Amino acid sequence: MLPLERALTMDDYMPLSRGNRDKDQKTLNQARISSSFPLARFRVLTGGVEHKERCTQHGLLLRLNTYKHFLSYTPIIGQFFSKDVASGHSILFAPRLSAEYAVWLGEIKPLSYFKERYMVDMTHYVDEIAEVLYDLGGQSGKQLLFLLHGLNTDSNNFSRPADFKDIENFETDLLTLHPILTECRVFKSNLEVDLIQYANDVSSEAHIEVMRRIGAGMKEYQLESIFLHHIYMHGGCRHCSYTCICATGENSAVLHYGHAAAPNDRTLKEGDIALFDMGAEYHFYGSDITCSFPVNGKFTKHQAVIYNAVLRAHDTVIKSISSGVSWIDMHKLAEKTILQSLKTVRIIVGDIDEMMEMRLGAVFLPHGIGHLLGIDTHDPGGYTQGMERPKVPGLKSLRTIRELREGMVITVEPGCYFIDALLNPALEDPTTSRFFNVEELDRYKNFGGIRIESDVVVTLNGCRNLTNVPREIWEIEAVMAGEPWPLKQKQTPLEPGLEPTSTLNPKS
Amino acid sequence: MLPLERALTMDDYMPLSRGNRDKDQKTLNQARISSSFPLARFRVLTGGVEHKERCTQHGLLLRLNTYKHFLSYTPIIGQFFSKDVASGHSILFAPRLSAEYAVWLGEIKPLSYFKERYMVDMTHYVDEIAEVLYDLGGQSGKQLLFLLHGLNTDSNNFSRPADFKDIENFETDLLTLHPILTECRVFKSNLEVDLIQYANDVSSEAHIEVMRRIGAGMKEYQLESIFLHHIYMHGGCRHCSYTCICATGENSAVLHYGHAAAPNDRTLKEGDIALFDMGAEYHFYGSDITCSFPVNGKFTKHQAVIYNAVLRAHDTVIKSISSGVSWIDMHKLAEKTILQSLKTVRIIVGDIDEMMEMRLGAVFLPHGIGHLLGIDTHDPGGYTQGMERPKVPGLKSLRTIRELREGMVITVEPGCYFIDALLNPALEDPTTSRFFNVEELDRYKNFGGIRIESDVVVTLNGCRNLTNVPREIWEIEAVMAGEPWPLKQKQTPLEPGLEPTSTLNPKS
Repeated sequence: MLPLERALTMDDYMPLSRGNRDKDQKTLNQARISSSFPLARFRVLTGGVEHKERCTQHGLLLRLNTYKHFLSYTPIIGQFFSKDVASGHSILFAPRLSAEYAVWLGEIKPLSYFKERYMVDMTHYVDEIAEVLYDLGGQSGKQLLFLLHGLNTDSNNFSRPADFKDIENFETDLLTLHPILTECRVFKSNLEVDLIQYANDVSSEAHIEVMRRIGAGMKEYQLESIFLHHIYMHGGCRHCSYTCICATGENSAVLHYGHAAAPNDRTLKEGDIALFDMGAEYHFYGSDITCSFPVNGKFTKHQAVIYNAVLRAHDTVIKSISSGVSWIDMHKLAEKTILQSLKTVRIIVGDIDEMMEMRLGAVFLPHGIGHLLGIDTHDPGGYTQGMERPKVPGLKSLRTIRELREGMVITVEPGCYFIDALLNPALEDPTTSRFFNVEELDRYKNFGGIRIESDVVVTLNGCRNLTNVPREIWEIEAVMAGEPWPLKQKQTPLEPGLEPTSTLNPKS
Repeated sequence: MLPLERALTMDDYMPLSRGNRDKDQKTLNQARISSSFPLARFRVLTGGVEHKERCTQHGLLLRLNTYKHFLSYTPIIGQFFSKDVASGHSILFAPRLSAEYAVWLGEIKPLSYFKERYMVDMTHYVDEIAEVLYDLGGQSGKQLLFLLHGLNTDSNNFSRPADFKDIENFETDLLTLHPILTECRVFKSNLEVDLIQYANDVSSEAHIEVMRRIGAGMKEYQLESIFLHHIYMHGGCRHCSYTCICATGENSAVLHYGHAAAPNDRTLKEGDIALFDMGAEYHFYGSDITCSFPVNGKFTKHQAVIYNAVLRAHDTVIKSISSGVSWIDMHKLAEKTILQSLKTVRIIVGDIDEMMEMRLGAVFLPHGIGHLLGIDTHDPGGYTQGMERPKVPGLKSLRTIRELREGMVITVEPGCYFIDALLNPALEDPTTSRFFNVEELDRYKNFGGIRIESDVVVTLNGCRNLTNVPREIWEIEAVMAGEPWPLKQKQTPLEPGLEPTSTLNPKS
């Protein structure tokens, strides 16, 4: 069991925030000097808004603006955060709370508390923001504020710029800050990687707990509950990075299963495959892990074939990652590896390069091979200005098409699914139908799907896998049979035809 | 352990929805006939919106509009629900989904599926809504639609009326529907009470599990995790009715502890009091239960004094509830009972009626004695049109001031807290300072608080308590020591001075 004491505390966290907010200082200062307002001084970000559920008083748990959180970890509703671009001084504007607050929500802290607790240089009240910024600016005429406003290329939503009383007395710049800050978020500091590693450790353990307790007759959501309990009870993780996908049987071919209309409520059957995509979040930094395994702890021949096809893609991509590698190439590599395996077992026939040309891989792997991971599960910065989203099946689902660079954290998540909504059109289309061996394919008709997902941090010459769960079939079967993880013995004899693969990246 | 088989299934649930939507038929039809559009035919409600977290792609779990849910339990994003007021026919408008949906979110169901599954009379696509309503209306000129728009008196938010393409071709009425539907929600059907009873059963069990596993050295959130796991694993409850309040030590005097800035993260100490306010939600119907008990399983003298003061108020109110009783009177009764107990132990001195006049009760009990409970934790309808919120301390916090009537479900939640932000002004004010025995009060300075909360359904001559947890001190101590609940033996000897009280309402 992971000792809870290993968890980073708020105290560990504050230098991380400070490090993050110094990251963009140089670039932003340069932008300031070359702007038409060279005396511009401040960037200003809003804090979080509290969602109210429906029209009611039921407040959902506060989730801060992630850009704001990147710069300063202050769980306060209605706050603003500013930084003097020239001097690097940070200013936190806290809301002035009424006496009622103390009765309902707790002790009202003085400004000095926030200054010390959150390692900022100055603290003021929100209602003083315009005045304070003006006084600090110390110049005549309108001052310029850099506000955060930009497109999240993953969701197509815009982040809302800060807005406060008398902001109309300032000039505002909506273009400069967002790309600079986004780029800072793409490359993780060591402390950030530590947090993602912790979330991975907690989640890896919880996935293993789920593997050990699963069995026919259970409800999918009971496994979700075991995961959630483990990460909170033993890891202090109140949130997940995303809604748990606990898909079994045919549901494993529904990529985003688990939502309100498909709430993990199927009863598990003997012989089912399980695909569990679940990740804990710790102090806002996330993990994103998928394990696929048989409900009864023993892979059938068919399950082993598809599982190993995906595992080989997963391992091959991890072995190929290093600084400078193109993510599109990694996606294609995964596709090709899977197609080769499917050809070996004669589900498909023909020339692999032709299949690649016809985008046949996207029939089995319709989602992208992975995405940047950080404070957001789909961390921003996947597309920089001018980069265009590919148009062809498979590649168009990529959440990033960048070249990998040291310090990026990215998921590696190949999958192979048998989805009627994709197979049927491909079987009807003469340009693709020729690749299918329908007789063999039919044996996998209700198979569902397999996904294997790990989180890696890119290094100069390779990558480091942050996820630590059994991946080889023999490892999974041993752990599900009660063996401790990591396994004591090296390897059990393989069934014929099941080659071993490895999750280690020797280059890292 | 509660058998999961007792949980109501979706199938049980559909007649409940149908019953709910027939409830307002008569009133609404009357309103239609006496309106300036006597041929008006339809009411139209929107479904749920999906919150996106921050500016990202991270969708929070869909939470439907509660009014819509009251009428029709259909977990579909982007839907509309309509009913022909004259004929009573219900129409569900489902979104037309793209082929992509099948890949990411699951099989696309035909309209006939929705019709059967959700027991509605007609199904159409959302993009047909204006046309269908117009054709069904069968009259010339503009038709009238009753839309839902009204103030939630608890949150001061307005529910958003339905909006769809070509709605400008209809007349719309925003005033009629909301009060009629709200009034329907105030009085629960037997099936609705069954659901609230189930949520109470699951939560009661989970509270007992928490009592049994609590101990010094644990983190507050670990008890939250135990509760959440129990209700999901053993009760199928994915959601809570509200954010768990797991307050120990001084935190027990922070009424809404547990939010993002105070996230249940204190380490429990020997001798602490624990105040746990947690309730499961099942198929949207909630429970709301508070248990207070010592972390180490044995009440100190001081803890027993304050606990019994609150328990006596809780029991006295439950014994006094019946159809026709004023909720303001119940609040005052709780206040008075608590003041009497505090006077007995000489924390306060003087004439109780004078204290009531000076609103001294609100210093110790600053929140309302209870609120309507249903699909919303603070269910709507607490104030009907023309009712004014009281202005004086204590009473102004009441979420309803109505007379109780058969079929209402309401929480009974007296508390007694030692909150500096309230005590200090009361000690400084000469009109209230004279009531305090400062020497005795000082012994409770860091006590925190006690709250005891049960959910009851009002009957003609009394009420039925839906909550089933140990309440007497001897019961709590026995259960925390490992005795099964309900207890086998009747009663253990009492410590001197600790009178027994009872949670039973003999009139129900």
